[in-house]
Amino acid sequence: MIFRQLFDTESSTYTYLVGDEASHEALFIDPVNADVDLYIALLAEYGLVLKYSLDTHVHADHITGSGLLREKTNTLTGIGSHCNALPADLQLQHGDQLTLGSLVVKVISTPGHTSGSISYLINNSVFTGDALLINGCGRTDFQGGDAGTLYDSITQQLFELDEETLVYPAHDYKGRRVSCIGQEKAINPRLAGKTRDEFINIMENLNLPKPDMIDIAVPANRKLGIEALPHG
Amino acid sequence: MIFRQLFDTESSTYTYLVGDEASHEALFIDPVNADVDLYIALLAEYGLVLKYSLDTHVHADHITGSGLLREKTNTLTGIGSHCNALPADLQLQHGDQLTLGSLVVKVISTPGHTSGSISYLINNSVFTGDALLINGCGRTDFQGGDAGTLYDSITQQLFELDEETLVYPAHDYKGRRVSCIGQEKAINPRLAGKTRDEFINIMENLNLPKPDMIDIAVPANRKLGIEALPHG
Repeated sequence: MIFRQLFDTESSTYTYLVGDEASHEALFIDPVNADVDLYIALLAEYGLVLKYSLDTHVHADHITGSGLLREKTNTLTGIGSHCNALPADLQLQHGDQLTLGSLVVKVISTPGHTSGSISYLINNSVFTGDALLINGCGRTDFQGGDAGTLYDSITQQLFELDEETLVYPAHDYKGRRVSCIGQEKAINPRLAGKTRDEFINIMENLNLPKPDMIDIAVPANRKLGIEALPHG
Repeated sequence: MIFRQLFDTESSTYTYLVGDEASHEALFIDPVNADVDLYIALLAEYGLVLKYSLDTHVHADHITGSGLLREKTNTLTGIGSHCNALPADLQLQHGDQLTLGSLVVKVISTPGHTSGSISYLINNSVFTGDALLINGCGRTDFQGGDAGTLYDSITQQLFELDEETLVYPAHDYKGRRVSCIGQEKAINPRLAGKTRDEFINIMENLNLPKPDMIDIAVPANRKLGIEALPHG
């Protein structure tokens, strides 16, 4: 399996390239609009053909590259069916499976950061978007976010995966790149040993500022980022 | 690939079980003497036959389970050839390769924590012993340790691996379980942006206490832990 974790310095977003060596099929998870040319160069470098451009949710801090990638490569775009991102080709639901050569991509519904958030499981790696971060989790105070729902998604879906499952989140702000389910269960300060009520209490008292880009990014991302482009 | 990261609470040691599903062959890296019965139960649970019991170095904080595993399973034992652990079947050197079914285990010489320390690379995971820890590294003030040598091992061997290579160390004292080469290059506080002289200066000023078990563990581990047993 070809694997690259890419970092957008503007929004601290991790974008993932996964490729199947035998079939040369590839996918991106959470591509960033501004980095699309880099992604296309990377596909060429590895000799890969883009089959899917997937988002874990409607992002509030950057504009997705999925729409632009579809324009430039004919990829299929996919996002959770509850995201209200109607131009996406694949309206994904819990239990859906995509294939990339012999690789299987399993869709896990993990709402709570947003009402439509999903995670993707590929082999022993789970791409959690903003549902589960390393030593943290996404905020739950906008876009249909709900702390109790996020607690249920993490504890009943993600924490039920094998302990060794690698956790690749959509962001980290301290340079950390990978964790595993066992680590997050044991030491994530918002979750380890915390009840649902304690988690809700933590989330309700974060007092975070409104994201700078939310009023631009959310409507743009519902259209896969295409309207944000000069020629859109 | 079957993979389990096991934790010995007494010494905060990570022991790794790696198994090849097709051939049912398995290995342990850095087994702990006190946990050997658990390892044998785990092999039975997965239907695996132990082929190798490997150590990354002569440990100063716990007694290896390699000798006892050899007594109980007929496994081959392996350790770095500069460790002066003469009872080990395999006196491993940089560049040596072992096979576990279709898996290849590559030996990388990484002295500095001890003069005989080695790391093992299997697929995209490197088992670094005490050479490179998550956000840290092993001390260099005993057993032929040398800070400059460790700096060279980390920067010229481990940091030359692919950025996505997963780092599985022999210890963590804060519950962290996995990192990757890119993360350690970017944010390991002893190494990121540090010159060789700066690293040596950091290591020379750690002022760590002498390990409690060193006078028992080191001579015992040179005999693969067998003399430490009541019936040894």
